[in-house]
Amino acid sequence: MLQNKTIVVAGGDLRQAQLARLLREHNRVYTIGLEKAEGLEDTFAETAALKQEPVPPDYIILPVPAGSDEDTVNTPFSGKRLPMEDLLELAGPDTLVLGGKLSEGLRQKLEARKLAWADYLQREELAVLNAIPTAEGTVQIAMEELPSTIFGLQALVIGYGRIGRVLCRMLRGLGAHVTAAARKYADLAWIEADGCTPVHTGRMEEALKDSQLIVNTAPAMLLNEQLLKGVPKSCLLIDLASKPGGIDFNTANRLGLKAIWALSLPGKVAPLTAGRIIFDTIQNIAAERGEGHGTDEAGLCNDRQLLHL
Amino acid sequence: MLQNKTIVVAGGDLRQAQLARLLREHNRVYTIGLEKAEGLEDTFAETAALKQEPVPPDYIILPVPAGSDEDTVNTPFSGKRLPMEDLLELAGPDTLVLGGKLSEGLRQKLEARKLAWADYLQREELAVLNAIPTAEGTVQIAMEELPSTIFGLQALVIGYGRIGRVLCRMLRGLGAHVTAAARKYADLAWIEADGCTPVHTGRMEEALKDSQLIVNTAPAMLLNEQLLKGVPKSCLLIDLASKPGGIDFNTANRLGLKAIWALSLPGKVAPLTAGRIIFDTIQNIAAERGEGHGTDEAGLCNDRQLLHL
Amino acid sequence: MLQNKTIVVAGGDLRQAQLARLLREHNRVYTIGLEKAEGLEDTFAETAALKQEPVPPDYIILPVPAGSDEDTVNTPFSGKRLPMEDLLELAGPDTLVLGGKLSEGLRQKLEARKLAWADYLQREELAVLNAIPTAEGTVQIAMEELPSTIFGLQALVIGYGRIGRVLCRMLRGLGAHVTAAARKYADLAWIEADGCTPVHTGRMEEALKDSQLIVNTAPAMLLNEQLLKGVPKSCLLIDLASKPGGIDFNTANRLGLKAIWALSLPGKVAPLTAGRIIFDTIQNIAAERGEGHGTDEAGLCNDRQLLHL
Amino acid sequence: MLQNKTIVVAGGDLRQAQLARLLREHNRVYTIGLEKAEGLEDTFAETAALKQEPVPPDYIILPVPAGSDEDTVNTPFSGKRLPMEDLLELAGPDTLVLGGKLSEGLRQKLEARKLAWADYLQREELAVLNAIPTAEGTVQIAMEELPSTIFGLQALVIGYGRIGRVLCRMLRGLGAHVTAAARKYADLAWIEADGCTPVHTGRMEEALKDSQLIVNTAPAMLLNEQLLKGVPKSCLLIDLASKPGGIDFNTANRLGLKAIWALSLPGKVAPLTAGRIIFDTIQNIAAERGEGHGTDEAGLCNDRQLLHL
Repeated sequence: MLQNKTIVVAGGDLRQAQLARLLREHNRVYTIGLEKAEGLEDTFAETAALKQEPVPPDYIILPVPAGSDEDTVNTPFSGKRLPMEDLLELAGPDTLVLGGKLSEGLRQKLEARKLAWADYLQREELAVLNAIPTAEGTVQIAMEELPSTIFGLQALVIGYGRIGRVLCRMLRGLGAHVTAAARKYADLAWIEADGCTPVHTGRMEEALKDSQLIVNTAPAMLLNEQLLKGVPKSCLLIDLASKPGGIDFNTANRLGLKAIWALSLPGKVAPLTAGRIIFDTIQNIAAERGEGHGTDEAGLCNDRQLLHL
Repeated sequence: MLQNKTIVVAGGDLRQAQLARLLREHNRVYTIGLEKAEGLEDTFAETAALKQEPVPPDYIILPVPAGSDEDTVNTPFSGKRLPMEDLLELAGPDTLVLGGKLSEGLRQKLEARKLAWADYLQREELAVLNAIPTAEGTVQIAMEELPSTIFGLQALVIGYGRIGRVLCRMLRGLGAHVTAAARKYADLAWIEADGCTPVHTGRMEEALKDSQLIVNTAPAMLLNEQLLKGVPKSCLLIDLASKPGGIDFNTANRLGLKAIWALSLPGKVAPLTAGRIIFDTIQNIAAERGEGHGTDEAGLCNDRQLLHL
Repeated sequence: MLQNKTIVVAGGDLRQAQLARLLREHNRVYTIGLEKAEGLEDTFAETAALKQEPVPPDYIILPVPAGSDEDTVNTPFSGKRLPMEDLLELAGPDTLVLGGKLSEGLRQKLEARKLAWADYLQREELAVLNAIPTAEGTVQIAMEELPSTIFGLQALVIGYGRIGRVLCRMLRGLGAHVTAAARKYADLAWIEADGCTPVHTGRMEEALKDSQLIVNTAPAMLLNEQLLKGVPKSCLLIDLASKPGGIDFNTANRLGLKAIWALSLPGKVAPLTAGRIIFDTIQNIAAERGEGHGTDEAGLCNDRQLLHL
Repeated sequence: MLQNKTIVVAGGDLRQAQLARLLREHNRVYTIGLEKAEGLEDTFAETAALKQEPVPPDYIILPVPAGSDEDTVNTPFSGKRLPMEDLLELAGPDTLVLGGKLSEGLRQKLEARKLAWADYLQREELAVLNAIPTAEGTVQIAMEELPSTIFGLQALVIGYGRIGRVLCRMLRGLGAHVTAAARKYADLAWIEADGCTPVHTGRMEEALKDSQLIVNTAPAMLLNEQLLKGVPKSCLLIDLASKPGGIDFNTANRLGLKAIWALSLPGKVAPLTAGRIIFDTIQNIAAERGEGHGTDEAGLCNDRQLLHL
């Protein structure tokens, strides 16, 4: 657990605000570019004043994505522009800079300043935990869009990675009949072991025909015109794959199918949880540097009261 | 399974439209006052023409609620007024009139005409199955309103009847930590056997203090000012109890708590499922009269394809 | 919670021994006729000495069943005979006598002595909680007898009362495909809502044909010769119904079917849990008399450490 | 799906017998060294006669393990010795030899004869599916050994690979409180996402103290004297790790702890399921060679009737 550190939390949305609140329990936290978030005043009245601080911070934490462009911190909860250079001026030789989706340009800036950095979005445990709000957001969309219950629904989930696995269990937990498609035999075995019906991605025609909900999680254009033609008109399609996506949306629209491209769900449907997950991941990064123990002492489900605003 | 019957389906919303579609698979179905529902023309051009039919229908099915007032069928999906008397003129001596929430006045009308009738909303199996869309609708509201995931959430469900039981399992299936409150020892034992934490309704203070979601299903004003004062500000309250409800909403608002009174969820969040449940229940009513077998041959989860529009 | 009471725990097996241990945490407990249970010396060296105690006990607790015959306490864990009359001599006017399956003769004895009594086996909450070890014991037998896993197994559970309901969920939790048979439409609706396939007890032929495990929980001779003829030879049948049972065992044996009559499972497969359940029930009985609060403050799953020997 | 092939199934136990029965549905199957298995006569009266067959088999399938020693097929269900050389004489240039745990010596024999071979025990999907009977066997042992129910039990599972993951879900499905220990942050995240309590393998002291059941699945000696001293006396320990195992058994015994080393559970507790899993895996091996489609068309849970003897 990070304790008694000096931490600058810069920019971001409700996730970053929640991260700041959680860190504040045991550390000295300065927020900047978050003044529109409830209870978080801008600790530095002017960015120019930043350089006057006597001791450099142990951590500077950037949001997801870190920059709105190469030179500017992404600050949707602030009325002011925060130049990246002004922020990095705060760093000392031992400051660790953390952020999500650090661009190539930003990483070069950091290297040029000889600053240590880590991209928490590349951590495996964050990806695993983020599968939870992503899957819940998907369920929420399905509940909102479908005139039937999830209970009793025939659902097809394409891809059995982190999100596919969590989503399948969630749909089954709500009483849906879940078929999952994968390419590798080991994944098909997991689908079976997890209580769903396995189908090879190369032979989905039958499964598509009976589906009332289809969710793609695979990073490949699998639902092409030929397959989409076999999907019932009342079926809802949700694509969770990042660009270029896994559904041919033009064709889907032409065929009269309702298809939704749902990206970045954690920050949208559950920002407090998403902020908490970033908090946990940062604990792990710190633990690997010899500072505290990481998530196993204070997991998502244990320190629940911290999620209260 | 009802087969080869003549059935008049009158008034109602998407539930009644779905019911008409499902009955049409094996029966002669005439719809009236549903002409705005997709694919359901008004079978009788004018209500006056109804009396000209040679043979009276086996069933006349009214919606939920049956009447918009004592004398008029409830027809939200129609542009025309349908007088109850005009509809009942269609009945013969062997016609069974079915409907939901039949008012005292309507029941007297039916008795006066010596017509057999049944209120499907009073059937236990309908109440059990309706708990599913009610619980899902509650989960949907919680997902929409809360900035956290249901996973990891501390939830308190008050009352362990049909809805409480289904809702608790659903919340647990999504990864919430569920406490349920009941008064009777047998219910407390069921709560424990179902994997939740039991608490007596008379001793909920502790449980309230830790809750992020509180759902009342009990038909009693349990959440009074004294208890509401112990609820955290970030907690969401949902009341599923019909009037007068189980939450003191005025006090909740004054305390700055977000409290939602969610009634009649099945028809709102999952009309197709709700229509299907009425269909199943009508099969059972018919089976008890010696016509077909009832839901066990064609349950909610088996004839899934019928749910397609 | 019972506290600072004087309690005599007499006779019984590991369940009664566990009950004594749990009560001893907060009360003065005297055990008699349990000296072969680990850590429980016979508190009264001779039954004759019992009458010398200055103050009569608040509670005398008999085992399940209470007597080995009308006049003798059931003491399988003792080398000595304990006459019922000797034990009852200990009672004072305010002593409450508790026991399981109190015979008509014993109840008359108690009434004759004007002693208050209660049969904890008749409590609904005990029956609910006992369904858990009963269902687990059934799963254990199925695991031991079948050469296949429960996962993927086609199981049929007949009857959807307390045991049927808990057993179905347990089998589903292990990955079996579960069909459950009931007679009432409301029960069939619950079976469906609980994620199993419902079938009417009057139309089980199809379900029987596909079953690899059949468990009867209904107190009626449903599995007669005609139905048993349709059961596959490799299927395992388990009857949980008390006498006269629900399976025609003679016919089953003649047809070469493996059929097991499994009675009184809680005391056999999980005596510590069974003792704990009796403890919880006695707390409730006491709470209803105004002494403490009952199980909701210390449920089966909360005070787990108490289950340690 | 393998069809119309000539297949020799040699040696083995009930698993191999079940495999032969399943293959026989669509292929010409010759069994050898299995004559004590029900319904499986020895197709070749004498091993000398094997060489007389006109066409060599497409497949020769050896059991797990393949040999009782380097030169002899493992034939526990036969009264005769079957020399490996005699069996391999049956092979033609296109015969594929399959087996489990092929020894270095046997593999050299096969290479020397220029025979294609595959070890199905090294397939990932077989390892995944075998986790199911392994986990069930573990639950069975716990049910048999513990005087409490799995429901409400405090369980600790060490290691979160295939078996750990399946076992944790199974224990939770039965109502246990499950803590799981792992070393990697991503595994700890999965433990949390799967609804269990995560703990780092380096900090298990607290978790051990409260455990009533500890199952080790990790291939490392983690439970040493220091940790075992903190385990309660009534706790049951089960080690699933192959030699040298993960529990210091000598110390456990000295401390009076009950510790069981449970190896090769699938063949022991569920041989039919284990045979079926080998069957599925062989289908996949064949599919990769262009013969049929593999398990996704006929998964473990779909062709259930095949599991009948």
